Amino acid sequence: MKADAATRAAELSEAAVAGDRLALARLLTAVENRTAVAEAALRRLYPTAGRAHLVGITGPPGSGKSTLVAALIAEVRKGGRTVAVIAVDPSSPITGGALLGDRVRMQAYAGDDAVFIRSMASRGHAGGLASTSTAAAAVLDAAGFDLILIETVGTGQSEVEVAAAADTTVVLEAPEMGDEVQAIKAGLLEVADLVVVNKGDKPGAQRTAAQLRAMLVATAPRDGNDDRPRPKRPEVLITTAATGDGVPELLAALDRHRAVGRAGESSAARSARAEAQVFAIVAERLRQWLGDPAHADTTASVLAEVAGHRLDPYSAADRLLGEVRSE
Amino acid sequence: MKADAATRAAELSEAAVAGDRLALARLLTAVENRTAVAEAALRRLYPTAGRAHLVGITGPPGSGKSTLVAALIAEVRKGGRTVAVIAVDPSSPITGGALLGDRVRMQAYAGDDAVFIRSMASRGHAGGLASTSTAAAAVLDAAGFDLILIETVGTGQSEVEVAAAADTTVVLEAPEMGDEVQAIKAGLLEVADLVVVNKGDKPGAQRTAAQLRAMLVATAPRDGNDDRPRPKRPEVLITTAATGDGVPELLAALDRHRAVGRAGESSAARSARAEAQVFAIVAERLRQWLGDPAHADTTASVLAEVAGHRLDPYSAADRLLGEVRSE
Repeated sequence: MKADAATRAAELSEAAVAGDRLALARLLTAVENRTAVAEAALRRLYPTAGRAHLVGITGPPGSGKSTLVAALIAEVRKGGRTVAVIAVDPSSPITGGALLGDRVRMQAYAGDDAVFIRSMASRGHAGGLASTSTAAAAVLDAAGFDLILIETVGTGQSEVEVAAAADTTVVLEAPEMGDEVQAIKAGLLEVADLVVVNKGDKPGAQRTAAQLRAMLVATAPRDGNDDRPRPKRPEVLITTAATGDGVPELLAALDRHRAVGRAGESSAARSARAEAQVFAIVAERLRQWLGDPAHADTTASVLAEVAGHRLDPYSAADRLLGEVRSE
Repeated sequence: MKADAATRAAELSEAAVAGDRLALARLLTAVENRTAVAEAALRRLYPTAGRAHLVGITGPPGSGKSTLVAALIAEVRKGGRTVAVIAVDPSSPITGGALLGDRVRMQAYAGDDAVFIRSMASRGHAGGLASTSTAAAAVLDAAGFDLILIETVGTGQSEVEVAAAADTTVVLEAPEMGDEVQAIKAGLLEVADLVVVNKGDKPGAQRTAAQLRAMLVATAPRDGNDDRPRPKRPEVLITTAATGDGVPELLAALDRHRAVGRAGESSAARSARAEAQVFAIVAERLRQWLGDPAHADTTASVLAEVAGHRLDPYSAADRLLGEVRSE
């Protein structure tokens, strides 16, 4: 690693931990781009992280995730704690950015140093979305935030994994969603520690909550095939994020889950995060190594043989791994 | 690799290529589970694949992807070609399965050997969804299908990547979708070779198509940052999948794109698929190696140090890579 990256990382890390929000934002950009500065900063900051409560919030489009996040921020601030948000944006890295309504809502906190909001594009992460968002959470954790909310859309494999990797995973539903959404819901419920029926003022909210409770009874308790122990089936709450109804109860439930989790479950989430992060870096390192000038020609010719169907991908992988091992 | 896996793979591969649909289904299950049989089969079959036209079909929930796939199947069959479908299912691997309406629609082809439909769960793929679906497509390709349609929901990183890895990527839209969906749309359009406004009989279809054409003019031509050359901006078509309107024109556009692609662009898609597959296998092999009895203790203790924030993930990755290299 270059010395100037280490120096820059030390400067940014110290400033970020001291409360410099611009330095924090720059560090997170470095993390998104997986630069040498990010690596040096994470090497420094990671051992001081591990105190924050990571909360994943996911649900189908239209379930009101961003509105609920805004309501949760308000509730957390009432109690005097600090909160950071990582919003994994379903839109393009190019057209980028959050939706207008949410942007306006979030600007209420523009002057509040105890609130920090960051959008992350959901595509184009070389090391994987889960690894990048976990690294970003570690930076925010080291910077001292009490709660870190990670908001993702609940209709993609990577996006659901991001929320599921948190200490506490909240799955949001809205009343009266369509057929395809019902199918998505079933997949989502598997990762839920808490289920929230949002838009509680709409007709059908109570019925949706009752249906969800029935579904959860039908599927719980889970058998031994789950690598994430689930001590009991998820609680189902009703909120109306737009008015704040039910949000204090949600925060209380999050805190309860955290308290129980400290004794056991959250260590499983932590192990899973550690594993995902380390293996993503191992894979990235290998990829870099295979693309190095010393190996790039071999790598390119092996890949070209696979693209031309003259070599199968397993033999190709064996050949490339042979390169790695023989050096 | 065990000899019995190789024998079983040889049996299944030969039967599948000879037209045995049960053998084909079993091979695809092996591919989903990444078994030794799948590896041996892919080593055999991969060099004979490479002739099929891979078409990715993606779009937001509710845009009518499955209905369009059913209409495309009917159109392809009219022309006498064979077609396989890989439907990457947004629902749970546990609750599993396609939506009821589509299932009924697809049963029309239950007796037609020239049509093969396969659902794949979108979660739980150790080697990554893109790598698994590419391997499944290679098996179907070797089994002789002319077209392979890969249907995914267009709201997740992994799911969009799956469709984008095809030779031709179709992005579906429906008229009059909401705010959050608009943001998703912008991200999706980046991967489109063809854009289809489905539900063309709804009010607003023509306006949506006009808006999309305007958006595509505004963003094209693309600059050099795209690793996938785009010779021209995507065509926008209107279909009504439920009645079949516009479907012959869509198939003709797919064939045109394929014909142009053979000369250039599709080789970029092929290279990307080869690279994704080979690197997924390299990463998987490494993971297996680190979990081997000879290394599992070291791996577990390094990961536990990271989970406990006593070691940063980069140092952990370096330590594990050192193990690999030093053997």
